[in-house]
Amino acid sequence: MIKLTQAYRLLNHGPTILVSSSFNGKQNIMAAAWNMPLDFDPPKICVVIDKKTYTRELIEASGSFAINVPCVAQVDLVTKLGSYSGRELQGTDKFAENQLQTFAAKHIAAPLLTGCVAWLECKIIPEPHNQNTYDLFIAEVVAAYADERVFSNKGNGQYHWHFEGHDALRTIHHVAGGAFFAAGKSIQAQNT
Amino acid sequence: MIKLTQAYRLLNHGPTILVSSSFNGKQNIMAAAWNMPLDFDPPKICVVIDKKTYTRELIEASGSFAINVPCVAQVDLVTKLGSYSGRELQGTDKFAENQLQTFAAKHIAAPLLTGCVAWLECKIIPEPHNQNTYDLFIAEVVAAYADERVFSNKGNGQYHWHFEGHDALRTIHHVAGGAFFAAGKSIQAQNT
Repeated sequence: MIKLTQAYRLLNHGPTILVSSSFNGKQNIMAAAWNMPLDFDPPKICVVIDKKTYTRELIEASGSFAINVPCVAQVDLVTKLGSYSGRELQGTDKFAENQLQTFAAKHIAAPLLTGCVAWLECKIIPEPHNQNTYDLFIAEVVAAYADERVFSNKGNGQYHWHFEGHDALRTIHHVAGGAFFAAGKSIQAQNT
Repeated sequence: MIKLTQAYRLLNHGPTILVSSSFNGKQNIMAAAWNMPLDFDPPKICVVIDKKTYTRELIEASGSFAINVPCVAQVDLVTKLGSYSGRELQGTDKFAENQLQTFAAKHIAAPLLTGCVAWLECKIIPEPHNQNTYDLFIAEVVAAYADERVFSNKGNGQYHWHFEGHDALRTIHHVAGGAFFAAGKSIQAQNT
């Protein structure tokens, strides 16, 4: 469990995410590069979810979703999950079809994807104008977790990513057409 | 000049940006990690600009701003520009004080910072509720440019970042406290 006021640090560097959702026994997961932190305390985030998506239907019905932060080891999976709609599937879903393992969230119904490096449980703050006009969702982060191998407070209370020695766990940052950058060299500004 | 419908690719991978602004002979520039694309055509973006900032005053007065995408060579400058307010300065501004070179935008008054690797001219789409409640600005991108050494269409019509051989020009992605990641290894998903 990450200190909530530092949950923004999971998204601050601009990773591409997977949005998972669940309502009434149905569940889905999609890729979303268009996301950003919106506030520190209580933590809020923004994410763009197109009207056509099955995810949109499930998150509007449930009022919640999970952000899963995937890593280098999952690039092909992220691209696949972003390439088709769960609505097309008959009698199955993207989780079963791709043999994905998940674990339960604490405050929302959406499943959390095993193998990702961070997870944020999000409850939608209803803003119908933004949702209808821009496909823009604002949500409050009610819980956040991370893989401690690559994101921890190292005992000083300040959470940071530390990918050294874990190249397969680096976050991924989509440009277009399945082309990503991995989070690269760490740089500390000298005047801080 | 970047094809406008591909301007989102300048921000899609989550870089930290500099927001420059100008109104009535005053100008300013600040750092902003909280930004994302919002639409393809016409291209729109979101950025969070705190009420306290001098930038906020100038962009609300002018209705426009520029996004400058800085690079590894500018990490210390970005951190410095993000650490104090231009409002505190008497008889000068952040550009003069830091000896920054700029060039003119075509459609807006905000200056564009030399040494960055991309620039987007933005006109605010007024959304008072978002601005007042969330410090959230939505804007249309009316022109976009990039340093062709690291972002080009390579003749096939598809613009991409290509940082190989130009490590100092890689985009930077802030976590917190002056800690950044450079855009790292390029990864192409195999199923695209």
